[in-house]
Amino acid sequence: MEISNLLSDRVKSLKASAIREIFKMVGKSDIISFAGGIPSPELFPAKELGKIADKILENNGAKALIYGITEGYAPLIEIVEKRNKEKNVGKSFDSTIITTGAQQAIDLVGKAILNEQDGVIVEAPSFIGALNSFRSYNARLFEAEVKEDGIDLNQVENLLKTEKNIKLIYTITTFQNPTGITLSLDKRKKLLELAKKYDCLILEDNPYGELRFNGEEVAAIKSFDTEGRVIYVGSFSKTLSPGIRVGFLTCHKDIMDRVVVVKQVNDVHTPLLNQMMVTEYISNYDFDEHIRKSAVKCGEKCAAMLEGAKKYFPGDVKLTNPDGGIFLWCTMPEGVDTGIIFEKAVENKVAFVPGRTCMADIDKVSNCFRLNYTTVSNEKIDEGMKILGRILQDYV
Amino acid sequence: MEISNLLSDRVKSLKASAIREIFKMVGKSDIISFAGGIPSPELFPAKELGKIADKILENNGAKALIYGITEGYAPLIEIVEKRNKEKNVGKSFDSTIITTGAQQAIDLVGKAILNEQDGVIVEAPSFIGALNSFRSYNARLFEAEVKEDGIDLNQVENLLKTEKNIKLIYTITTFQNPTGITLSLDKRKKLLELAKKYDCLILEDNPYGELRFNGEEVAAIKSFDTEGRVIYVGSFSKTLSPGIRVGFLTCHKDIMDRVVVVKQVNDVHTPLLNQMMVTEYISNYDFDEHIRKSAVKCGEKCAAMLEGAKKYFPGDVKLTNPDGGIFLWCTMPEGVDTGIIFEKAVENKVAFVPGRTCMADIDKVSNCFRLNYTTVSNEKIDEGMKILGRILQDYV
Repeated sequence: MEISNLLSDRVKSLKASAIREIFKMVGKSDIISFAGGIPSPELFPAKELGKIADKILENNGAKALIYGITEGYAPLIEIVEKRNKEKNVGKSFDSTIITTGAQQAIDLVGKAILNEQDGVIVEAPSFIGALNSFRSYNARLFEAEVKEDGIDLNQVENLLKTEKNIKLIYTITTFQNPTGITLSLDKRKKLLELAKKYDCLILEDNPYGELRFNGEEVAAIKSFDTEGRVIYVGSFSKTLSPGIRVGFLTCHKDIMDRVVVVKQVNDVHTPLLNQMMVTEYISNYDFDEHIRKSAVKCGEKCAAMLEGAKKYFPGDVKLTNPDGGIFLWCTMPEGVDTGIIFEKAVENKVAFVPGRTCMADIDKVSNCFRLNYTTVSNEKIDEGMKILGRILQDYV
Repeated sequence: MEISNLLSDRVKSLKASAIREIFKMVGKSDIISFAGGIPSPELFPAKELGKIADKILENNGAKALIYGITEGYAPLIEIVEKRNKEKNVGKSFDSTIITTGAQQAIDLVGKAILNEQDGVIVEAPSFIGALNSFRSYNARLFEAEVKEDGIDLNQVENLLKTEKNIKLIYTITTFQNPTGITLSLDKRKKLLELAKKYDCLILEDNPYGELRFNGEEVAAIKSFDTEGRVIYVGSFSKTLSPGIRVGFLTCHKDIMDRVVVVKQVNDVHTPLLNQMMVTEYISNYDFDEHIRKSAVKCGEKCAAMLEGAKKYFPGDVKLTNPDGGIFLWCTMPEGVDTGIIFEKAVENKVAFVPGRTCMADIDKVSNCFRLNYTTVSNEKIDEGMKILGRILQDYV
């Protein structure tokens, strides 16, 4: 029996996320990991969530343990809609669904929107989980570079002009994964204009936006949306806990109608207990204060890592300087292969995410890499940056 | 802006599960619902799960709240593999993944296996969640009738002979949804022979098999699998809680390799807390005794409903007589439209699932309907069957 003959073409060549593979590896060893993708775990309110879970199952167990509706737990939808409103997200033509993490939201949108060979414009670099999801629907990925103020709009317009059937522009607007860069207000408005002009949709992914430790909030693209062209994705993974797997999606009702059907066949609904836990936490604790504290912590850690880079990195390694979130992006001189440096670093017990895993073409050599500053202690940041700096010296 | 132009063809015509729509409706009213799909909710160990969740988050919170690996929580995989082994499921060439309910397992298989227009043989009637998932990948569905001892093998072989690109046979082997019928041992072996002969895969879905209240266990098709042709799906939804959304999938490593990548882009991993809760429950409580009690309860309720049918239903309504599980299937005389009866029943505060929602062609009139006997009290069963019996009288 030849199993490969019985597999779908669309997933035959799909590669597992290198980040997830790194994650598996570093989970098992004493490596200093700058490869993670979450805020400081000690900030997750584990004890509070434990009490909440116990209380829910004690008093409301039957409700938490049976099937729920696909759209999500109504009180949580209400909370999300209220929080959205504060950002002017969620228009009269929109509705909101609770998803099993923001990853599922992206994947549902991919399935609801993309025909095989449809085009998606993505940022270069971008989030591998989204890239792989689009790939899994046999979409064609087109890249536009991330500049200091976000995605290059000339490149976007050129692609929209020259390529056929581009359905979607995927952008992580604030403290982007993997660069930490924020798309400027002006560019947000112009990107929406381009989407209008060339009749495509924008998927605005914003899991990090609340973790701001510097500067002023920038309005969401969704806040300027007058016709349902923007699909907005958010998450509780970076504020409450990634393991709890609760995110959300806000978009035009006509798109949502399809997204709900796709979610129904996907996992019926997001676990009710998890939705109720998020609801109870936000209803009974000071969630905004919790986020504020997390953001401050992220800022401290970011400063520690930038300090480490200053002390230990060769001068010609360029780093971004994020105003929030959990990542920064390092660019080595042209021609350097950070895939090789990665192997060297892991041998020396430090891990990061090599740049090419964040690109549409993962086989192309990249001179960049992603650093996460939030999952290890300040001491470990210093220690890891020292080791990494020594290794980088050999490649500049 | 014309949103429909921007949707994927594959989901444009997909209809929401009528069962989920019924579920939404009956959740809001005083209807006696025979439309459910879960065992008696009072049997779910809510209090125990509450204590467990509290303990996990108190002692092991950081671990439960961060990202886990896509394959699942290792101790739970171990438990599943051990339990599988007792059924001779899980061969040397297999591996197991934890999924966000069995629905996700089915959906991942669909995505990993099916190209557009590939064929899937399904039972008539079958589980709407699986049918809709296959539809969402633009698969062509072919039906083979469920007889008293399970799927009609002549019809299966005819389809395999005449239709091109049939990749998958989907069967719910034990206490089938919606009929409650169990595929005979002899037919299980022959079905596998057919899959070999025509080189296709079998998706063996077994969420109800443990809820046996009569007769002897029948070996899984998977237990006869010598080459990885059978993909086996199980669930904790019917034994511990559906809302917790934990199921599993056991299949050949070469198929699993693709399933894992598809899950990774779908929801990264099943919520860790939920996986740990199932693990702790099974490790610290008598899970088999809990299942045995649930099965006894299912048997009592089934008897109550069959008794109600005997008392109140017209003589020419044919009912199945399940040895386990939670459903029975009613067949009215030819030409009767149970869709119309459904509307009448709901007006009279009783709900069931009309037969056509369980068919590949949901627009074709059906003279059948599904009854669930486990979600309401024995008194309500009697009351509901009395009302339903009165309505059915008008249609025979």
